[in-house]
Amino acid sequence: MARIAVLIGPEFEDSEYAQPAKALRDAGHELTHVGIAQGEVKGKNGKATATIDLLAQRAKAADFDALFIPGGHSPDNIRKDKDVVRLAKEMLESGKPVLAICHGPQVLLSAGMVRGRTMTAWQTVQKDLELAGAIVHDEKVVADGNLVTSRKPDDIPFFIDASLEKLGSGKERARGVAGAPA
Amino acid sequence: MARIAVLIGPEFEDSEYAQPAKALRDAGHELTHVGIAQGEVKGKNGKATATIDLLAQRAKAADFDALFIPGGHSPDNIRKDKDVVRLAKEMLESGKPVLAICHGPQVLLSAGMVRGRTMTAWQTVQKDLELAGAIVHDEKVVADGNLVTSRKPDDIPFFIDASLEKLGSGKERARGVAGAPA
Repeated sequence: MARIAVLIGPEFEDSEYAQPAKALRDAGHELTHVGIAQGEVKGKNGKATATIDLLAQRAKAADFDALFIPGGHSPDNIRKDKDVVRLAKEMLESGKPVLAICHGPQVLLSAGMVRGRTMTAWQTVQKDLELAGAIVHDEKVVADGNLVTSRKPDDIPFFIDASLEKLGSGKERARGVAGAPA
Repeated sequence: MARIAVLIGPEFEDSEYAQPAKALRDAGHELTHVGIAQGEVKGKNGKATATIDLLAQRAKAADFDALFIPGGHSPDNIRKDKDVVRLAKEMLESGKPVLAICHGPQVLLSAGMVRGRTMTAWQTVQKDLELAGAIVHDEKVVADGNLVTSRKPDDIPFFIDASLEKLGSGKERARGVAGAPA
């Protein structure tokens, strides 16, 4: 079981949060929603909500085993907060799994941590990443060291598989026995 | 009188479009709304709308004297279109005035045209610009050659003044006589 920080704010892409969140929980992982204001945040399509458990200013990388950043407008909304950026930077530096989809990698851009990393993102963000020195592939999912990235809602199943694999719970899920020993 | 292309799409920041658009028209300039789909586009706050006059795929830099890119979610929505990016690139290369506020510079990022330029943008986009090689100042308005950039709605009056100055209609406006000869 991994303790996963979910970096999330207003107008996240509903399915890019809800589907991976369900899969991560089903695999036995524990999610802590880290945000920039107390209360509930809503998806931009009005189909999902999340309740912030912890403010970014109180979040420490040492308390988590992995980081998950859903897409939508949420990443740009929250990356204005210096503690969101600090937490992302600390998690990337720690070597713990960092899972980001669609606009999620915008937070990693703000952390100044993409140079030389092989990754993907939402199509418009791909260029921003390239200009910042990342090696960008326009593929469903790209895994590079501790970093797993995907482009869009269509990629979610592949993002989930690669994320669970990175968390060491891929095999259990493939057999349909959540949390069972390998 | 300048012919100004307004690069705009869904969920623009209402005031960042409406206020400069009014000031530009009041100074005697002609606006052509260039977008990625026919019809009306709405501001993200529901306070302004704009009707697309011309699809980006049919827009030529030669037909315009200046480019204006309002902020909000619009810039990221439209920069996925290759002709939006092409038009922005051509206008920057032409030396004609390019006026961009808030998230507007994201279109210039996609055009690969910010390296070495002195500019500003919405706070989160400032870092993306820096990583792409721009010289970023956190100021109300930054003018560099043909490029005028601002950060946010609070900066609009300064953005308008610098834009009119760049278009050569600053003095007329300062005297309150729109369109009068200098």
